[in-house]
Order: sequence, then structure tokens, then C-alpha cells
Amino acid sequence: MIIQLEKDIKTTQIDTISEYLATTGYSVSGVKTQFMDYLVLLGNVKHDIRKIGSLDGVADIHYVNDAYQLVSNMWKTSPTTIDLGDNIKIGANDFSIMAGPCSIEGEEQTIEVADFLVANGIKIMRGGVFKPRTSPYAYRGGGIDSLKMFYKVCQDRGLKIITEVMDASQIDDMLPYTDVFQVGTRNAQNFNLLDALGKCDKAVMLKRGMSGTIEELLQAAEYVFSSGNEKIILCERGIRTFEKAYRNTLDLNAIAILKDKSHLPVIADPSHGIGIRKYVEQMALASIVAGADGIIIETHPIPEKALSDGQQTLNFLEMQQLIKKATALKALNF
Amino acid sequence: MIIQLEKDIKTTQIDTISEYLATTGYSVSGVKTQFMDYLVLLGNVKHDIRKIGSLDGVADIHYVNDAYQLVSNMWKTSPTTIDLGDNIKIGANDFSIMAGPCSIEGEEQTIEVADFLVANGIKIMRGGVFKPRTSPYAYRGGGIDSLKMFYKVCQDRGLKIITEVMDASQIDDMLPYTDVFQVGTRNAQNFNLLDALGKCDKAVMLKRGMSGTIEELLQAAEYVFSSGNEKIILCERGIRTFEKAYRNTLDLNAIAILKDKSHLPVIADPSHGIGIRKYVEQMALASIVAGADGIIIETHPIPEKALSDGQQTLNFLEMQQLIKKATALKALNF
Amino acid sequence: MIIQLEKDIKTTQIDTISEYLATTGYSVSGVKTQFMDYLVLLGNVKHDIRKIGSLDGVADIHYVNDAYQLVSNMWKTSPTTIDLGDNIKIGANDFSIMAGPCSIEGEEQTIEVADFLVANGIKIMRGGVFKPRTSPYAYRGGGIDSLKMFYKVCQDRGLKIITEVMDASQIDDMLPYTDVFQVGTRNAQNFNLLDALGKCDKAVMLKRGMSGTIEELLQAAEYVFSSGNEKIILCERGIRTFEKAYRNTLDLNAIAILKDKSHLPVIADPSHGIGIRKYVEQMALASIVAGADGIIIETHPIPEKALSDGQQTLNFLEMQQLIKKATALKALNF
Amino acid sequence: MIIQLEKDIKTTQIDTISEYLATTGYSVSGVKTQFMDYLVLLGNVKHDIRKIGSLDGVADIHYVNDAYQLVSNMWKTSPTTIDLGDNIKIGANDFSIMAGPCSIEGEEQTIEVADFLVANGIKIMRGGVFKPRTSPYAYRGGGIDSLKMFYKVCQDRGLKIITEVMDASQIDDMLPYTDVFQVGTRNAQNFNLLDALGKCDKAVMLKRGMSGTIEELLQAAEYVFSSGNEKIILCERGIRTFEKAYRNTLDLNAIAILKDKSHLPVIADPSHGIGIRKYVEQMALASIVAGADGIIIETHPIPEKALSDGQQTLNFLEMQQLIKKATALKALNF
Repeated sequence: MIIQLEKDIKTTQIDTISEYLATTGYSVSGVKTQFMDYLVLLGNVKHDIRKIGSLDGVADIHYVNDAYQLVSNMWKTSPTTIDLGDNIKIGANDFSIMAGPCSIEGEEQTIEVADFLVANGIKIMRGGVFKPRTSPYAYRGGGIDSLKMFYKVCQDRGLKIITEVMDASQIDDMLPYTDVFQVGTRNAQNFNLLDALGKCDKAVMLKRGMSGTIEELLQAAEYVFSSGNEKIILCERGIRTFEKAYRNTLDLNAIAILKDKSHLPVIADPSHGIGIRKYVEQMALASIVAGADGIIIETHPIPEKALSDGQQTLNFLEMQQLIKKATALKALNF
Repeated sequence: MIIQLEKDIKTTQIDTISEYLATTGYSVSGVKTQFMDYLVLLGNVKHDIRKIGSLDGVADIHYVNDAYQLVSNMWKTSPTTIDLGDNIKIGANDFSIMAGPCSIEGEEQTIEVADFLVANGIKIMRGGVFKPRTSPYAYRGGGIDSLKMFYKVCQDRGLKIITEVMDASQIDDMLPYTDVFQVGTRNAQNFNLLDALGKCDKAVMLKRGMSGTIEELLQAAEYVFSSGNEKIILCERGIRTFEKAYRNTLDLNAIAILKDKSHLPVIADPSHGIGIRKYVEQMALASIVAGADGIIIETHPIPEKALSDGQQTLNFLEMQQLIKKATALKALNF
Repeated sequence: MIIQLEKDIKTTQIDTISEYLATTGYSVSGVKTQFMDYLVLLGNVKHDIRKIGSLDGVADIHYVNDAYQLVSNMWKTSPTTIDLGDNIKIGANDFSIMAGPCSIEGEEQTIEVADFLVANGIKIMRGGVFKPRTSPYAYRGGGIDSLKMFYKVCQDRGLKIITEVMDASQIDDMLPYTDVFQVGTRNAQNFNLLDALGKCDKAVMLKRGMSGTIEELLQAAEYVFSSGNEKIILCERGIRTFEKAYRNTLDLNAIAILKDKSHLPVIADPSHGIGIRKYVEQMALASIVAGADGIIIETHPIPEKALSDGQQTLNFLEMQQLIKKATALKALNF
Repeated sequence: MIIQLEKDIKTTQIDTISEYLATTGYSVSGVKTQFMDYLVLLGNVKHDIRKIGSLDGVADIHYVNDAYQLVSNMWKTSPTTIDLGDNIKIGANDFSIMAGPCSIEGEEQTIEVADFLVANGIKIMRGGVFKPRTSPYAYRGGGIDSLKMFYKVCQDRGLKIITEVMDASQIDDMLPYTDVFQVGTRNAQNFNLLDALGKCDKAVMLKRGMSGTIEELLQAAEYVFSSGNEKIILCERGIRTFEKAYRNTLDLNAIAILKDKSHLPVIADPSHGIGIRKYVEQMALASIVAGADGIIIETHPIPEKALSDGQQTLNFLEMQQLIKKATALKALNF
């Protein structure tokens, strides 16, 4: 159950509501986001919710029959749009293409990609500076200095940035130089990180865990929301199965279901999904038809020379073709 | 390695070729299908294949670097079209929609569905009369009598039939009343059944096993082909994973890869894949974009009253909408 | 619900019982095995079962709250022992070791293994003559002639035979030369085969499907039982997961649960489970502690030269050490 | 390749070695742990390693043919023992039982469990104060105050503590009150946490990720080791598969392989593995036979009243029986 409180609610009103709720048997969690105040009520309680609805300071009350609450579309029935500023939005009517290299390498490469994106109408650039690597001896990214350079290049060109945060301790340093924090698949249930991101007023894109269920992804989003941040984007990036013919099983079923269960935007990541360059276009387009609000694609001037993930990275020509087809597909308005 | 033999090859020529091959170290399998004679050569052998190519009676020779051979597109580079007769084809430029109820129930229902399909331009009707059921006490289908009725209804209306065969012993009885034999996911590695179907001149649609790899599906097809039947259709119908929010993980990645590795047509089965009625349309359309040559969809006049699988079955209105969108999507010509 | 009928029940009594049951709303299946007559009652019906219990000819009535019925231990609370004759038994107090090569090769090899088994107190020899192979070009076993030779060698030495049947059409030919029919993982839901084996009075060992659930294995057993054969053995042989460091994930959890849910004996197959020779002993012993009634082990005089599965096959010395340790472990009487 | 440096190596010697290695083409990582200095050399380089071995300051050099290096037993061939002090050790000849409640609740409960453990010869108590929970609204543990109380209770009784750390930021606060840091399955690839734990001189137990491969677990250990801490324990706690009859698939195959590939001790966690109380004993004992150096078991005076995980928690009587059987099993000395 979700109670939306009135914008100008007074402390005394909150006290009265709290006192009343204490008598109902519900377990109550207060949530204050950048947009609104909520109370989340949990518990298998029989109660006439109209009584709660009539209390002073209660703007609205919604019955939510899901394990997750604030991210459910049982209370917020229209899809959420995340506004990144400068009229760049994610969700609903704003189809997003995010593209860029796996790792931010030097300034020259960054400029080359950024210019390409601008020339092709793409508004959000991806690029990693903190890279989660299975082996401790692998290249772990350029760090905060790379991020600053990356951000400047993009800001100069009107591009927004999405980049991965690996640990709560990095947030403060990254904050001025990041538009969308990406939480990687390995941190899909790093609850301390999720909590900390809930305390920022920056968009957060949550990748599904390698073996994360759809419900766990939504609960991860619930962590961010209930911690104070409503600007959440979900991302399907493939799950682990027995199949070895590709990298991960990009799960378009999950996209269909996430769009049906939650009001949050959903992005598909076919580069990390199928993980083989020549199939990325097909899977990106299929994701759109399955309902994705956007796609995130690895692209690089010369994929064969990329510092990481070259095997799943498109070159510029391939990227242009994908953009063209994606646009045609969206125009069908399914 | 695949050797295609000349159409009018003489026994003496075959003997000469065989004698020569016996000296090379290859393991040789002779394959005679409804269309052509082949020799499949396996083994890690160094040999100048031009010498084989120059033998009398050899039409062509192809190097195939896959575990499977005859179903690989390394030798047959253009996609295969399966001709069901009466100008009804599957594969390449002939997008197929197969639709119908999970189980063939009575004649009235069969006619109702058949008439609906005809009215909507669908040419292949699906319907089960032998039903594999987890519990021995569940309804196992109407059997051969149902098939005869089903076939007659379809024949009267110019529809082709696809129906499941569960055991080699059923083939002879089913043969006169079946256009496409479907091999279910539980029989995906029933090699005796595959061998037996290789001896028919009827199309065979092979469903991927629940935990079958892409390579295993192609090897199952290799069984049918090498046993003598080239009319093979592959079907992705969802795999088993940890996710419980839907029935099976319909794996569109597999469609992209099957189309790239094999010359055989690939059909998607979103009804058994995601297995939830309201998502079937999205997944069907996404499958098309991923490369499927067709879709197989469960439809029923009143899904709520279907003898089996009602929860994943479309009603006629939903089916019509799907046909319309599928047609628009195919017209994009991606 | 299971009704056990009296041994000497008369047709008129059965008629009376059937007429009565027809009034209750249950769906009723009659089951006649080599040992007894049963009626299986399914359906969500409210009925005073004492009324059924008091009918003439009803020996006993049991409430079974599982999807499967006759294989559940909710009605048969003591473990089942399968008697192979000559005082060789499987289940309960009779710990079984079944051993032998993957494939029956020549007579010499068969005799060598058989003599080794006899010398080491093993009473059941395994060996395949019909081999399910992923590729149609791989060696498919020696067939019925190999079986006859294999049987004779074993009969001469007082050994019982377990061997795989791949298709219902093979049963009649195999019957005189087989003590235990093994159903392989790829046929775990080949319901026609299961039905046909239910009509024999020979023991049947059912391997769990590669991605078969525990419940599906028990339902496969229910097929055999309800079709008329109570002599069923369950076998855990590893499931398919994402892990690639071994062949299959031998699932000892399943052994613990199968032993708790069913009265049937459970055998572990670590050779096909972990699939790596040097770990087979550990996993075999762990299976015993997890509750297995026996183990089935691939052994060969020279594993490196075995026609198939050499990488997971023990040599005689390793086999002897395993027997010794298994015996010590069983003596702990956990 | 691993170079062990001499204990009293001088800076100038290190410089000379580094200069030499720079000429070889290897990528070199310096590792300094609480016990020794190492250089880890990676790269596909052809080089006569005797030349490196003969350099001043090089104590030993080992060729390691695994993706992981320092945790491999290719260089450290005898099993590692972790010394927790007070003669309490984990690994090799020191079989460990760790037991306690899922969550540390009040002082009374903690004392009750601690006294029980002492009375039954158990030397390491488990208990969570920071609880990773799927839902943000679930109980998240008693935090640092609970840890202080827990530690004091245990210290007073000579017990060591194992407890979960969820984030690098918690380490400093926890350090004085923790003997073994546990990294949970959801943080199995939280590389920042692993790095930070590598900088402590406290034992760390790494749980395998829910869908973590055996190699990924070893690479996680490599993070801790290469970051400076050799006191690492591996823990198998069950993986995610399609099976729903139990909580997780406790993977004893992994135990056998981890013991064969690494010198680190391996602990089994059947409580979180199979996750059903009545099967925990069987799986714990099977784990021992599979090669585990110890088991970690949830126990509580009244499992039905535990704040979390009661369904998989043993009561004291069950725990005593398990201890007795585990001891008998270890005495077999397999």
C-alpha cells in the first residue's frame, strides 16, 4: 500500500497520520524523494483504507499487490519519464539510444565517438572508467581523471553521460561529472550501493543480475526509490544459462514483463546480451519490438582495437545502420 | 566435408569413389534423400580435396567446419524453402503463420478455427492429437481419429496441417493425414524418432529441447537429414532457466544464430515460450525482427475453455491484431 | 487418493466400486500391476473417504497430497525393494553397485569386466548396446547381437544386466536378455517408451532429464507404475547448469529429496554427473551419504581405450578402492 | 607465473628484478601480503624462466597454468591453513564447524547459542548483523551495536566470530569485533569490497555467487590475495538452477574441484544450499565426503521463532546429532 502525502504537509499532520497507522498493524516506511513524500505500508492487514484516505495530509492512497511497491505500476499507471535536462529524456515517448565504447580510452577516441554520436542524433554517450573485471590483473579503467575528460568532451557537445559506478565511495567524486549512474550486473544486489544512489538526485540505470530474477531487479529499483531517488531506469543485459553459443541469453521476455509490471523505463543491452557483433543489430531491433524504451550499444571507431569488449562492439557504419532501422521500427508505433 | 553426387551417378562410379575415399582416412557416411545423394566425410584428415572433386560422379564438394554438416550453411549458402504443396511454402521469402488450438477438440471447434484461419489468410493449422503430458493421468489427446477429422476439415479448406508425433510407431498411421510432423521439446533427442522421420518424405518441425543447446538442435536436424529427409524446419520454443515470472525463456538469440549457421527455416513459438497470453504478441513480433521465418501461435475461439494451454492462447481478435502487425513488420524488409 | 483393491476381488465388486466412485466427482484411473490392483482418484473433491473404504473389495485407501500418486511415499511408507532374482536386490537394505563400460565392445572386454566384477562382489553389470549420440555419425553401439553376448557372459557368472533401451520398438527383442531397462536422460519424458515399459515385468531405471525437475522424474515413474510395472528405480545423473568446469551438476540435493518423497530406490551416477574420472570416487561416496541406495559407475580395463566416455571411466584399481570405501561408509549406518 | 621474493629483499634488488622483467614482455604485478612478497607475471611470453630464477632476491619461481595465480595449487601444493589465533584453525587437518543463527537477535539468544556451541566443542560462531535482503523493507540486521555485543559474548567464551560485511565502508568499524569476514553471494563480484578486504589482516570467507562459476570464485579470491591478504576461505552455498524443489542447488561437484585446483580451504553451507531443515544434515555430511574442510550451519534454540531463515535452521538437538555424525565421518579419514 502506498500513501502519497500532500506537498505542503505539516509535521503535525504527519504525526497524526503516523499515530493512526500505528493502530492498524501495518509496518510503515517513510519515503522522501526529490519529488514527493510517501508512506509505504506492508503487512497482511485487514483495514478499511478509506479511513486512511480521509486523513488530513493524505493526497492519495493506492493498493499495491506486488512484493515491490513504489516501482510497481499498480499505483503509478502511466510510464515514468526521466528528465536528464536540456530536453534529453528517457522513457515513454522518448526513445533513447545510448552508445559509446566499453572503456573510455584517450581523449582523441572520446572526441571521435562523441562527434559521431552528435552527427547521428544520439544524445547519450556511454563509456566506462571504473571497469569490473573478473581478474584482478585486467585493465580496470581510467578512473576519475578519465571521467572528467569524458564529461567535458560530452558537455561541450550537448551529450549526456552514462557511466558505471562500482562502489558507494565513488559517488561523491563522480557526481559532478555523471548524468546517469550505471549499476552493473555484478552489483545488481549491492544494497549499500543502491541505498547510496537513492540519496542522489541523479538518474540511475540498474542492470539485471546475471542470474537475477525480474522481481529481484524490481526490488533493487525499490531500494533506490525508497531511499529517495525516483529517477530509475531498468536494463536487461542477458542472463546466464546453459547455452554457450553466445555470451548471455538476452531475455526479451523480461522486457515485456518489466514494461507491464513497472512504470519505469526499460533499456536493452544487446552488446552484453548476445555479445557477438554481427548479431547485435538484430537483437537491438527485436528488443525495441519487445517493448524497450531504448537501447545501449557499444560502438568504437575500430572495434578490433578497443581496450575491452571489441568482439561485441559495432563500428560506426554498423551503428548508423542500426540507428536507421531502429527509427523505422519506432515509426511503426506498435 | 560434403560430397554431392551427380543425379545420374552409376553404381560403378560410386564404387570407385568409395574405394578412393577408403584410402584417405575419412570416415564416410552415404546419405540418400528425396532430392540428392551425398557422402559425408568426417575426420581430422589432411587431404587435397581437389583430388576428390575431380572423381567421376562427384558433382560438388564442400568443406564444412561445423560439428553438424548437411544442415550447415557452409555448403548450402542460400536458405532452404520447404514446399508443402499447393503453393504453400515455409522459409526464405515465404513468411509463415501457423495457428490453431493446443489440442484438437471436437469437429465444431476445428471447423470454427479453420474457417477463421482461412478468412485471415493463414495457410497452416496447428493442433495436437497426441499430447505429451507430464502426468499420466492428464488428457492425452484425441488420437488418430481426431487427426483424421482434423485433416479432412483442413483439406476441405486448402489448409495444411502441423501436428505432433510422439513415437516412431505412430508415423505410418499419421502419414496420410499430416503435412508437417512436429517433434516436441521432450523428444528433441529421441534419436529413433528422428531417424524414422528421416525416412519419410514429409516436412518435420523440430522443437528445441527444454535445455537443448543450439548445436544439439542442429544435430537433431542432422539426424533427420542424414537419414534421408531434407524437409526440416527448426523451432525455438523457450528454454528452462531460473526465471519463474514466465513459462520458458523464449530465446531470440538462438533464432539469430540458427539463421546464421544453418540454411533451414526457423519458426518461433512464443505461446510455449513466454507462455502468458498478454505477452505473446510482443514476443511473436520480436521473433520476426530477430530473424524468424515464421511463428506458430496457439489460438482458440474461447481460450478460457480450451482443453489445454488456455493461459497462453490468443482469441480470434488478438490473433487478427497479431497478423496485422506481423504483416506490417515483414513489410519493413529488414 | 489411492485405493488398493483386494487380491481376489470379483468383477461384480469392481463394478459396484466403480459405480459408487462415478457419483463422487473423482476422475478414476484403474491400475493393474504385476503385484496388485489399484484405483487412482484425482480431483479436488470433498468426500468422506471412509465411505469408499467400507466398500466390498477395497483393501485400503490412502490420501496422497502430491501431484504424483503411486510413487509417493504418502501411501507406501516403507521403501521399495526391487528383486532381480537370485537374491540380487536393489533398494532398502540392499546397497547396489552397478558397474561396467559405457559401451559393450567385444566379448573379450566383456568377460574381463565381468570377471573383475564377480571377483569384487559386484552383482550388476552395466553396458550399453544402443547408444544415444548427439551426432548421427558417432558410434551407436553394438545392438542386439552385442546384448545377447553381454547377457550370456553375465548369466554364466551370476551377474544381472542393466542396459539402455532407446525406443519402445526395442523392448520385445531386448526382453529375454535384460534384467534392468535403463531409460536415458534424453528419453526422460518419452512417454510412449515409459508406457511400454510399464507393460513389462522387468525392472526399469529412470534417469533424470538433463533439465528435468524432481517432480518430473517422479511423474515419469508414475507413468511406468500406472501402466502396470512397480519395479522402478530412480537415477540422479546430473543436471545442466551454467557451470562449465565439469560435465553435469550431479545434484545430491535431489537424492535427499527423492528419498524423502518416494518409496522407490535411488541410484547415483557420478560418472555421467561430474564426468571427470578423478572426481568420480568423491562424488560416488558423497552420494551414498546423501542417501543413495546405490551407485552406477563406468569402469573399463583401460579407460583410455574405451569406445566412449573414457574420460569419466575408472580403471579396475580405482574401482576397487571405491568399492572398499563405499563399504566402509555404508557400515557407518547413517 | 609467480615469483616469490626473499623475505629480506632490498629495494635495489627489487629494482634490478623489475628492470629485467621489463625486458621480457610479461605484465608484472607486485603483491605484498602479510606473509610474503610476490611478483605475478602474466602474458603469453616465451622466456627461459631459469634466468629469472637466478636473479638476486628471487626465492622461488613457479609456472602456473591457470587464469588465477596466487590461489592456484600449481605453485602452493600443500593445503593452506588459516590461523584464527588461540589454536583455532581452518583448513587441512583442522575440520571446522561454524554454527549459529542467521541473524544475531538479542543478547540472551546470543548467549544461549554461544553456550551451546562451547558445550559441544564448536569454536566458531556465525551470526549476521548486516543482512542483505531482497526487499528494502525487510529486517536488515542489528548493525554494529549487535556486533559488539556478539563479539563480547564470544570472546568471553573463547569462540571466534564469522559475520557478513556488505560494504567496504563497514570494514573499519567491524575490524576490532570480527575474526572472519564473510562476503555474501550477492557481493561475490563486488571487487571494491574484495580489494578492501585484501588490505586487512583478517580471515575472509568468500561465498560463491548465485550464478558464479568455480573460476569466478577463484578469481574473487585472487582479488583478495593480490590485494595483500592470504587468509582466504572459499564457501560453496548453492547455485541457481531451474529446480524449485529446494532453495539452491548445493553443488558438491564444486567442492571436489575447488579442493583440487586451489590450496585454500573450502567450507560447505548446506543451510543456504538445500535450504530445507530436514535435509541439512544429509547435505552437510555429503559435503564432508566430497572434500569440504568444514561446514557452516544455521542453528537456533527455536528455529520457528528465528528472525530470518528459520525454515533452514537446525535446533540444538539436530545440531548435536550432526556434530556426532560429522565426527564419525571425519574419522574414516577418506
